[in-house]
Amino acid sequence: MAHPLASEPHRTAVAPGGVFDWLDEAALLRADAGLTRTLRSREAEDPVLDLAGNDYLGLTRHPVVTRAAADAALRWGGGSTGSRLVTGTTALHTELEEELAEFCGAEAALVFSSGYTANLAALTALTDPDTLIVSDAYNHASLIDGCRLARADVHRSPHSDPEAVREILGGRTQRRALVVSDSVFSVDGDAAPLAALSDAARAHGAALLVDDAHGLGVLGPGGTGALAAAGLAGQPDTVATVTLSKSLGSQGGAVLGPRRVIRHLTETARTFIFDTGLAPAAAGAALAALRLLRAEPHRADRAREVARSLAARLTAAGLQACEPDAAVVSVRAPGPEAAVAWAADCRRAGLAVGCFRPPSVPDGVSRLRLTARGDLTDDQITDAVRIIAELAPAGARSR
Amino acid sequence: MAHPLASEPHRTAVAPGGVFDWLDEAALLRADAGLTRTLRSREAEDPVLDLAGNDYLGLTRHPVVTRAAADAALRWGGGSTGSRLVTGTTALHTELEEELAEFCGAEAALVFSSGYTANLAALTALTDPDTLIVSDAYNHASLIDGCRLARADVHRSPHSDPEAVREILGGRTQRRALVVSDSVFSVDGDAAPLAALSDAARAHGAALLVDDAHGLGVLGPGGTGALAAAGLAGQPDTVATVTLSKSLGSQGGAVLGPRRVIRHLTETARTFIFDTGLAPAAAGAALAALRLLRAEPHRADRAREVARSLAARLTAAGLQACEPDAAVVSVRAPGPEAAVAWAADCRRAGLAVGCFRPPSVPDGVSRLRLTARGDLTDDQITDAVRIIAELAPAGARSR
Repeated sequence: MAHPLASEPHRTAVAPGGVFDWLDEAALLRADAGLTRTLRSREAEDPVLDLAGNDYLGLTRHPVVTRAAADAALRWGGGSTGSRLVTGTTALHTELEEELAEFCGAEAALVFSSGYTANLAALTALTDPDTLIVSDAYNHASLIDGCRLARADVHRSPHSDPEAVREILGGRTQRRALVVSDSVFSVDGDAAPLAALSDAARAHGAALLVDDAHGLGVLGPGGTGALAAAGLAGQPDTVATVTLSKSLGSQGGAVLGPRRVIRHLTETARTFIFDTGLAPAAAGAALAALRLLRAEPHRADRAREVARSLAARLTAAGLQACEPDAAVVSVRAPGPEAAVAWAADCRRAGLAVGCFRPPSVPDGVSRLRLTARGDLTDDQITDAVRIIAELAPAGARSR
Repeated sequence: MAHPLASEPHRTAVAPGGVFDWLDEAALLRADAGLTRTLRSREAEDPVLDLAGNDYLGLTRHPVVTRAAADAALRWGGGSTGSRLVTGTTALHTELEEELAEFCGAEAALVFSSGYTANLAALTALTDPDTLIVSDAYNHASLIDGCRLARADVHRSPHSDPEAVREILGGRTQRRALVVSDSVFSVDGDAAPLAALSDAARAHGAALLVDDAHGLGVLGPGGTGALAAAGLAGQPDTVATVTLSKSLGSQGGAVLGPRRVIRHLTETARTFIFDTGLAPAAAGAALAALRLLRAEPHRADRAREVARSLAARLTAAGLQACEPDAAVVSVRAPGPEAAVAWAADCRRAGLAVGCFRPPSVPDGVSRLRLTARGDLTDDQITDAVRIIAELAPAGARSR
C-alpha cells in the first residue's frame, strides 16, 4: 500500500471534522424558514390534555392493554430474537394475525415491526418493472418511499380523483397496475373515495392498495376499517395496510389481503425478511386492544362523534376546521411560524395539539392537527375548543 | 360519469380475482428452485436449543430485561402514541438515547422503531444528489434499500476491499461522499476492515457509515461495538447504526454519531419523522439490557469465545465453518435444498439453526448460520456440534 494517493486527482482535502459542516448549513436554512423541529420528552404523568397523538380510541394506557403487553414481555421475552422467518414468529404473532384478519374481513394478515415497513413491503413485493403504480398526490411518506423503492413506473395522481386514476390507467402500457391511496389522509383527515377508486381499478384490471392507518378502529362497522365501510373487505383484488400504533395502542403494522398476497409478502418482501419480528409486548398489546374493540364496538362511533363535535365547535368559533371523515380534525394556520406559536401557546395552556408544516404537508399549508380520541369527555372537548379559539393567531379566522 | 370507458383503449379485461394470479406463478417458480419459505410459530416454552436467533448475549429472556419491558408498558402504555416529534418521545426514550451514546462513545443517539428504518434514515438524510455512496457488495438489505431510497449516486464496491474504496472515491465527481459498510456481515459473520475503510474515506474527505447491528454487545471493550474496537468511536466523520433487537434483547434501532448528525436526522429523516416512536416496553427492555452489559462486560467476551469454540469444533468435524470475527458462525452447505433439509433435520434433533439461501446470500452459496449466544454452556455447544456434524449432508465436507 505504498503511495496510496499517488494516482489520485488533486482535491481540496476536507478535515474529518468538516465532512458534516453542510448539515449545520442546512439547519440554518431550516431555522430561517421557521422549520426547526425539536424533540420534546414527556413524563409518564403528563397533566397535558393530549389531542396530538394517534391514540384514537384511548386504548394505549387502558389497563387491559398495558397488562397484556407486560404479560407478553414476561412470558415471551423483551424481543422476538430474529427475523419472522427464522425465530421471530411466536404463537402470539400468529394469533394476532389470525384475529386481525378475521376482524377486518380479510383472508390473511402479516404483522410488521412498523406501518412504515409494512407499506414498503406491500409496494415493493406487489409490483415489478412491468407494473404501473398510480399513487395519490397526498399519500403518506411511507407510501411515497415504497413507490421509490419499487422497481415499477410510478404516476402521481391528483388528490382523491378517481376519474384521473381511470384516465392514467387507460393510457398505461405496463402489464400490471396498482392503485395506491391512504383511506384517511393524515394531514386533513379527509377520506379517499375508495369505492370509486376500486371501480376505476377494476375497469382496468388493476389491484388496489389502501393504507388504512387512520381508518382501522374508527371507520366501518365497529371500527373494522375503511375497506369494510366501502364494502371492499375480503375482495380478491384489494389489499390493506394498517398500523397497530394508533387505534390499537401499540406499535407495528400489518398487511391484510388475499392469502396468496400474504404468502408472497412472507416469501419475498425485503422489509419483512430482513427485519426483526415485532416485540412480543407490542403483539400482546395490539391483540388485547383488538379484543377490547370487538367487545365494545361503540368505541369507534365515539371517536367519530368526538371529531365531528370538535370540528363543529371550532368552525362555530370562526376557525377554518375541516369537516372530519374519521378522527382527525385539521385547522388552518396562517403560516408555519404562526402554527408553531399557536401550538406552543396551547401547550402552555395545558393542551397538546399537532402542528403540521412543510415539508410534512402536501399543499404547503400549515395546520394544527387534532386527534379526536374516543375517550375524551364533553368537558375536555369544551376546554380544548376554548383554548384553541382563544389563542388563535391573527389570520387564523380569515378565508 | 356517462360512458367512462368510451375513450379508453380496448384491453383484455382481467377479472378482479385474477389480478394476483402472477403471485401464484412466482410461488411455483420459487418452489421449483427449492426457495419456498414458510413461517414457523414457536411456543413460549420451546425445548429446542436456539442457535438461530440473534440474541447474542442471551438477554432477551433475562428476568431483569423482561421485568423492565413489563414495567415500561405498565407505566407508559402499550405504545408511544405518535411520531417521536409529536407525542412519541418519552423520558424513557431520552434516557435510552443518552446511555446508549455514552456506552458507545458517541456524542448522541437517536432511537428508531427498527434497525431497518434507522439505516434508511441515515442513508437518505446524510446524502444528497451531489453525494457518492460507496457501498460494500455484501451489505445488509436495509443498507441496500437505503441506497436505493437516497437521491445520491451509488457505487457498489467489492466486499471488504479498502483499496477499491480508495479508487472509487478518487474518481468521484460528486461534492460529497459516504462510505457504507456492515461492521460484521450478517451471513458469514466476517468483520469489515473498519480502520482501513476510515483511512480511505478520510483520504478523500468522505464520511463513514457503519451498520454495527452484529457488533454492538459483542465487539469492542465490554461490547461497546465495532467502532470502539477500531478506535473510531466518537470520531466527527463517523456514524454508526445499531439494533436494539440483537444483543440488547429488544426491538428497534438507533443511529449514533456527532450531535449535528443526530439533529439533522431528527429534523429531516423521513423514517424518523413519519413513523410512530418505539414502544415504551421495547425502550425499557433495551435500556435494562444495556445496563446489564455495562455491569457485566464479560458477557461480550463470552459470546466471542462461544463462537470460536463452535467454529473450531465444527472445522475439526470436517465441516466448512468460517473463522468467526464476532458471534456469527456460518457453515457451508452443498445447495439450498440440502441446507433446508440439514436445518430441518437439526430441528427434529432439538437444535434450531439458521438457513441462508439465495436471495438472502450475496454470493449464491447456501449456508447454515449459527449464532453463538453468550449464555450457552459447554455441554450445549458440544451437543450442537454433534447434531450438526452427524446430520451433515453429502457434500458438506468436500471443498
